[in-house]
Formats: sequence, C-alpha cells, structure tokens
Amino acid sequence: MPHIKVNEDLPGIRSLMAFSPETAAPMGDLANLLLRTNEGLTMAERELIATYVSYLNDCFYCQHSHGAIVTCYLNDNDELVNQVIKDLNSAPISDKMKALLRIASSAQKGGKLVTTEQVETAKQNGATDKDIHDTVLITAAFCMFNRYVDGLASNTPTDLSFYPLRARQIADNGYGNHIFTNKQPVADKQEI
Amino acid sequence: MPHIKVNEDLPGIRSLMAFSPETAAPMGDLANLLLRTNEGLTMAERELIATYVSYLNDCFYCQHSHGAIVTCYLNDNDELVNQVIKDLNSAPISDKMKALLRIASSAQKGGKLVTTEQVETAKQNGATDKDIHDTVLITAAFCMFNRYVDGLASNTPTDLSFYPLRARQIADNGYGNHIFTNKQPVADKQEI
Repeated sequence: MPHIKVNEDLPGIRSLMAFSPETAAPMGDLANLLLRTNEGLTMAERELIATYVSYLNDCFYCQHSHGAIVTCYLNDNDELVNQVIKDLNSAPISDKMKALLRIASSAQKGGKLVTTEQVETAKQNGATDKDIHDTVLITAAFCMFNRYVDGLASNTPTDLSFYPLRARQIADNGYGNHIFTNKQPVADKQEI
Repeated sequence: MPHIKVNEDLPGIRSLMAFSPETAAPMGDLANLLLRTNEGLTMAERELIATYVSYLNDCFYCQHSHGAIVTCYLNDNDELVNQVIKDLNSAPISDKMKALLRIASSAQKGGKLVTTEQVETAKQNGATDKDIHDTVLITAAFCMFNRYVDGLASNTPTDLSFYPLRARQIADNGYGNHIFTNKQPVADKQEI
C-alpha cells in the first residue's frame, strides 16, 4: 500500500506524478531529453541503461517498464535485456555498451566509484564525452526515479503482461508533452 | 580531473550543466520546485534534507553547497547542519524533522528501505502526505545530483570559503530562471 494517499488506479510513478503534477513536468522533460533521442546513443541503448540501473536498484516497476520499451525498439526481441542482466560479459552487445554499462553499475552504487580506467575503456571502444555524460546522467536519473517509486511504496503491477502495452505507448509517443511536442524522434526499430 | 572535457573554471554541477544545457533546464526547474518554496516544509528544512542526503552520499560539493544555503536561511547559524550530521537524535530540530530525516536516510540507501513505521512516526509528529512526498523526492533528486557531480568527477572546491558566496546568490535568487522568474518566494530568515 502506498505511504501517501494517491490514486490507486494509477500504477507506479504515474500515481506520484498525478499527486504532484508540478514536479512531474520537469521529471518528464528530463526523461524525454535523456531517453528520446538517437544523438550518440540510440533510444534502445538509453533504455537499456535505464533498465539495467533499475534492475540494480531492485525497482520492479521501472525495470519492467523500461525493459519492455527496449523490447519494443528491438523488433520485440525480449531476450536481450535478460541476457544483459544475467551476464553482462557474455551478452550480445558491443564492447562500447558493455563499458558504458560497467560505468552505470559503478555510478549506481555511488558517483565516486566510477574509475578513470572504466572511462578510458569506454573511450577506447568508441564512446564520446557525450556518451559518457549521458550514461552517468541516465544512471543518476534512475537512481532518482527508482527511489521515488519505491520510497513512497507506489503500486507495482506484478502481472508482467501489464508492461508491454504501456511500453508501446511510450515507444510511439514519448514520456510527456512538455517540451518535445514537435520534435519527438520516430521510434524506428533499432539495434544495440 | 573530470572524466569528460568540461569548462574547468566552473565548479561541480555548474560545469556539467554548461556541458549539457538542455538537460540542465529541467534539473534546475526541479531544484527550484523542490527547494524554493515554503509550502509545507520551509526552504531551510528542504535544504537541510538535501544537505543530509548529500552527506550520506559523501558528495563534498553538494553537501557544502547546500549546507551553506541552510546557514544563509538560519541567520548565519552554521552549527545546525553539523549537529544534524553528527547526531540526528540530539540535534535541536523538531521531532517531525527528525522523523523526515530518518525517512530520507532510508530512501538514500534504497527506496524499499523506507518503512511504514517511519512514515507513521512522521505523520504522528505532524507531517502531511505532501511533506512525506517532498522528503522522498528531495532525497531521490539528490541521489541523482550527487551521482551526476561525482560520477563525472567534476571539479570540487576544497576551500570551504568558496561555498558561502554562491549560497548567498542562490538564497537570494534561486537555482535558475526557467519557470520561476516571477514567483520566487522571498528568502526570509527562517527557523527549523
């Protein structure tokens, strides 16, 4: 049961954003800016970082919400997220993405745990400063979103069939209409 | 040395916000909405939560930046922050604030660690649903800001005389001009 009185018909962060629409606006804007662009990292890669961090933070709602969006972007391939979570080293993703996810894994535990060696490895595998910046900020933002969702004990659907429907809406339309109304990139099928 | 090429004349999060002004805008808006209002919790109480969480996350830059703002709001009393950090139980703050800071301490470690008992204690001491919401979201937001600052190894002034100057500017003018231009509350001297 949620710690505060929210609309219990709404799941997860949506119930909190309805409780506090003023703060929801910049949070939605930030999610759009970080996750709804293919500049540098693709939208699928950005959502994979968000999913991985949510998994590390043990946030069921965010992990499955964003994992389902990765699946949407990847031609309904729902295996990749599980492979990354199960064993990052053997997952079928680029060395650059592995290096960035290792940076994410460190930053999830604490900012100071990101090492110069991790950053150098990412750069040697093709990551730009913007890729590294975006990886750290996506990680940091999901350390916020995950704590918001679970810190207020918002309702979390346990039926996994809930998540793909909402994921398709977000894949098609983004996270909100605050700043992106006319410039949402098209959510083409992607690869990682 | 920062992990990415930023303007090294700018300290901490300001160098990152200059690197990525697009994402800086909603982050500044969120900081203003969470920290620059006296609705429910005072601005001093909100900054105290931000300072305490930054201390728990071992983020020197954010801890001293926001601690200096608390000091500005409290008639230049620079003892309170140290007392809270040293021993929350004996610090000269209300039982409501102690209960909210205990919720913040749990949420800083992980959202699921906030207990129903902690929330009930806060309510019994006068906290509203909005106070609890804002405490968790301030905590979550600083788990983001702290990781952003340290995860990219941004420059952190170690000379403590740096922080009061900037704090006074923020106490007087807020965190940015994105949405609050005409409705910034006056930063009167406050009590906790």
